[in-house]
Amino acid sequence: MGIVLGPNQYGKAENRVVRIYRESERHEIRDVNVSTSLRGDFSAAHLTGDQADVLPTDTQKQTCYAYAKEKGIGDIETYGLDLARHFVDDIEPVTGARVEVEEYDWERVNNPNHTWVKKGQEVRRTVVTVDGKGDGQRVWIVSGFKDLVLLKSTGSQFWGYHEDKYTVLKPTTDRVMSTSLVAWWRYNTTDLDFGGVYDDVKRLMLQAYADVESLALQQTLYEMGRAALEAHDEIAEVKLSAPNIHHFVYDLSPFGLENNNEVFHADDRPYGLIQATIQRDDEDSGAADNADPGLAWYTVPAFA
Amino acid sequence: MGIVLGPNQYGKAENRVVRIYRESERHEIRDVNVSTSLRGDFSAAHLTGDQADVLPTDTQKQTCYAYAKEKGIGDIETYGLDLARHFVDDIEPVTGARVEVEEYDWERVNNPNHTWVKKGQEVRRTVVTVDGKGDGQRVWIVSGFKDLVLLKSTGSQFWGYHEDKYTVLKPTTDRVMSTSLVAWWRYNTTDLDFGGVYDDVKRLMLQAYADVESLALQQTLYEMGRAALEAHDEIAEVKLSAPNIHHFVYDLSPFGLENNNEVFHADDRPYGLIQATIQRDDEDSGAADNADPGLAWYTVPAFA
Amino acid sequence: MGIVLGPNQYGKAENRVVRIYRESERHEIRDVNVSTSLRGDFSAAHLTGDQADVLPTDTQKQTCYAYAKEKGIGDIETYGLDLARHFVDDIEPVTGARVEVEEYDWERVNNPNHTWVKKGQEVRRTVVTVDGKGDGQRVWIVSGFKDLVLLKSTGSQFWGYHEDKYTVLKPTTDRVMSTSLVAWWRYNTTDLDFGGVYDDVKRLMLQAYADVESLALQQTLYEMGRAALEAHDEIAEVKLSAPNIHHFVYDLSPFGLENNNEVFHADDRPYGLIQATIQRDDEDSGAADNADPGLAWYTVPAFA
Amino acid sequence: MGIVLGPNQYGKAENRVVRIYRESERHEIRDVNVSTSLRGDFSAAHLTGDQADVLPTDTQKQTCYAYAKEKGIGDIETYGLDLARHFVDDIEPVTGARVEVEEYDWERVNNPNHTWVKKGQEVRRTVVTVDGKGDGQRVWIVSGFKDLVLLKSTGSQFWGYHEDKYTVLKPTTDRVMSTSLVAWWRYNTTDLDFGGVYDDVKRLMLQAYADVESLALQQTLYEMGRAALEAHDEIAEVKLSAPNIHHFVYDLSPFGLENNNEVFHADDRPYGLIQATIQRDDEDSGAADNADPGLAWYTVPAFA
Repeated sequence: MGIVLGPNQYGKAENRVVRIYRESERHEIRDVNVSTSLRGDFSAAHLTGDQADVLPTDTQKQTCYAYAKEKGIGDIETYGLDLARHFVDDIEPVTGARVEVEEYDWERVNNPNHTWVKKGQEVRRTVVTVDGKGDGQRVWIVSGFKDLVLLKSTGSQFWGYHEDKYTVLKPTTDRVMSTSLVAWWRYNTTDLDFGGVYDDVKRLMLQAYADVESLALQQTLYEMGRAALEAHDEIAEVKLSAPNIHHFVYDLSPFGLENNNEVFHADDRPYGLIQATIQRDDEDSGAADNADPGLAWYTVPAFA
Repeated sequence: MGIVLGPNQYGKAENRVVRIYRESERHEIRDVNVSTSLRGDFSAAHLTGDQADVLPTDTQKQTCYAYAKEKGIGDIETYGLDLARHFVDDIEPVTGARVEVEEYDWERVNNPNHTWVKKGQEVRRTVVTVDGKGDGQRVWIVSGFKDLVLLKSTGSQFWGYHEDKYTVLKPTTDRVMSTSLVAWWRYNTTDLDFGGVYDDVKRLMLQAYADVESLALQQTLYEMGRAALEAHDEIAEVKLSAPNIHHFVYDLSPFGLENNNEVFHADDRPYGLIQATIQRDDEDSGAADNADPGLAWYTVPAFA
Repeated sequence: MGIVLGPNQYGKAENRVVRIYRESERHEIRDVNVSTSLRGDFSAAHLTGDQADVLPTDTQKQTCYAYAKEKGIGDIETYGLDLARHFVDDIEPVTGARVEVEEYDWERVNNPNHTWVKKGQEVRRTVVTVDGKGDGQRVWIVSGFKDLVLLKSTGSQFWGYHEDKYTVLKPTTDRVMSTSLVAWWRYNTTDLDFGGVYDDVKRLMLQAYADVESLALQQTLYEMGRAALEAHDEIAEVKLSAPNIHHFVYDLSPFGLENNNEVFHADDRPYGLIQATIQRDDEDSGAADNADPGLAWYTVPAFA
Repeated sequence: MGIVLGPNQYGKAENRVVRIYRESERHEIRDVNVSTSLRGDFSAAHLTGDQADVLPTDTQKQTCYAYAKEKGIGDIETYGLDLARHFVDDIEPVTGARVEVEEYDWERVNNPNHTWVKKGQEVRRTVVTVDGKGDGQRVWIVSGFKDLVLLKSTGSQFWGYHEDKYTVLKPTTDRVMSTSLVAWWRYNTTDLDFGGVYDDVKRLMLQAYADVESLALQQTLYEMGRAALEAHDEIAEVKLSAPNIHHFVYDLSPFGLENNNEVFHADDRPYGLIQATIQRDDEDSGAADNADPGLAWYTVPAFA
């Protein structure tokens, strides 16, 4: 029995690239955070320290900045795909690449030509994975957002649950429901108006969040994912992760005050955490992908 | 020579109060973070542990939540003033109170009645200080914001500076200028539409940031403060603190690429930090206040 | 083609449980952060909002605190296993549970009986996963740490790497190497002195980090993992994730000063990120587990 | 009535300087975060954008790194004083400087020569302020630490406090007391073994925290400050800021379990916040300094 190298990857994380387009008087801005990871047979680097097959992480960084000029930054999916394909197609020892891009949104203020204020809401992001050289090359594009903080002040219930000896929670038919939503969805194509789909998926999820009379956060998440899948054939699968940010009705009775869901304490920890996948029932490529844990999009955050 | 107690205060920090108004079908929301500090002669608590004069921090917390119902939460300045005056006027041993309130802004989404998404931009805040009981009671209201992130892609220069033997910086007539602005301004009245003034001051500062052809961040800050003071007699003084979030032009020349202020690296640390006060030349009450460092608004963040 | 529910889980995250043992005058302390997730057929909760099979996250929280008294908190692996087995064995609709526990270490100060100062170094943690009821029940225990920050001021090189047209990095035979190490290792048994093994694995990894004349961070990580596997048969596999915290030699030549690896700028972003698995060559149970992405330890951080 | 410039300063914040001493095989390390601010008549920079009197923040940065080589980094107080005096004495337009230095502590591991692990406990820091050129030059050195997290599991009480209609808290004669201590103390000399005094002050404060049978956190803080002042004539004044990190006894009675101060929930927010100054009764220079809020050490964190 010996000891061997298993799955591995390496790259340059969190390159903070800002791209200004100044061809016209009305400038445009793209503000991204891009992280690269390369895969291949890097046994020598691990076992003997031989770097002959290793493209330095510094070179990966240079490439991210150079591509911001050479290719430009349009949709983050396209920028990520350009980078990932370059590493796999052009660098001989590299057989797979994972490129993650976060984008920070800005809105123009006052002088419309060249001044912005950061929007500060959700962060749009994508993970592009390219595996294999030549004809058999496979591509995954998984996009989504984080930090979309939502709250509804009614239209949420929780009752009829399983009880055991540790159950002290009281059922409710009207509560505040709030979350900071993390959404990921996997595309089944690389030829798409990614920005347009992003805006529509976000819109649909917000609409479902607002409209569903919720019997559980699980139910709300499922309806949000379903709305996205029904409207967008180009999406194969949706994953949602939603903390239940508890807003506890504050006990004002010692002071002779009523509190009819008016005054709450927003608590930090602990919080509920509800996570669900919503997918198509003919989705078997996903199952196949999962057999390869180094590539399947379940493993998008490959390490933590 | 003996050892004695000097300036001191105590309270409950970061009460996360959320207030929903549900009198009509169209709910309203106020989401605040409130911190209280009480001042007075608390020598006994420090020297012998005698708590007879100490209103517990837990009671201060209860009061914050109770007032959200009893008084409601309108402008954070009014909510803070109600709390501060209550502690000083109604609690015998308390002779001064400092109440800080942060407010998180939400915007309605889709269903306009009871669903919101957190805006995520700047945090509005105020510090209300009440000192003394009865006729001589003094009040300070200092308001402002933090986390307003700005960027302009041209219209900023930096040249003609003092040089010494450690100076290697090259002058520039066109650079990116970006900051995450912290603003404080002191009101000279307690009777005001605080929310309306807030919106207008923010608007004026953004306008000045965009419009000034900047020879230095100092100059831009001064013009932002001046715009606020000129338009609002009810403001006595403005303090601005602005990190210079460096956007370095990335060197693409090794790759044969031009970079005409198009591709930048947004750096984290170190950063410039420019801080200035803009005030009225007849402002002598401020000087007088400063003689009492426990109360002067310079000491708003009394400890760190 | 329809839309269906895929893999899902739910629970209560970040319960901050502190346990004091005060049977003798010399108290003991355990300070943990525990997160639970339950798995099973929760389709009804998602599709119709029916909660009959859902054990509330509040109940999971109560159980974490109750078990701190009923079972006590010894090794976090044992505490996590008790909780996970309870949920799967005692709650009918639950067929799988994932329990993550972080532990914060304290050291006694001065008065040895009941006063501590928080150590503040690495955070020990474990993820315990139990799948299936009765005879076929499987258990995974994956333990490790995060936030172990290391630095060596010599004994690290980097040269001989693959170059392309974006490569500008200069080779070096002497550099600072620093990381904030994240380590995970999977046990192949549940019957163990987990604390004793933890201490020894940490010691071995530190020793390898210090001793290896490093030709690449990859090589150092491999040797750290190998040292753990060689000494501990009860460990099946090691995963290491190591940011390369760049310490750039500062250019002092404009000031006529030599800098022979003496003055560095410690940069924040971007950073290299090296991730590797070190395993046994007869390790096929891992491969089998990977076919079930909901359970395999690759998916320990199932969502992000 | 016109608008004028008030107190202002500018500088380079958070220079992350790491200094390795490698004269012998046994290397030494200093790891600091240094922030500079310069004061003087910078009206022109603000009013007209004229930079002739402005030493760029980039030059300040270069100086921090150059001094790490030229002067070395011994005690952070000495390093800060060298920098502050240089800016005031050598740069004509500069009449005052404030230099803040944080230091991160490392301990050697295994190989004693050149490998370290970051300690991760409290951060030692200092603020050095130099005001005025030539004979009348004044110097303040204020040192201390942050992030020293303490807990005692008994020996803390809280009862006999002032009650009003919002008081619901129950008195206790035995509770957990925990804090994350921020300490500042002002030296009355610049000629000192700063590191030796630091270690002893920290030791004395920990001892007092452990030994005092506490009737209130106020009492404990006062005793901690008194211990430092009594032992060290070179300290003029102590300021302590201590969050009361609440550890709530968890209610296990619904499950038929006793909880005799054994199981706690460590809560995040809100938290008590106790702040106190302990000083000498002949300390009138402090009062005099306070009349000048731009310089007094009360305003060490001049802006927030």
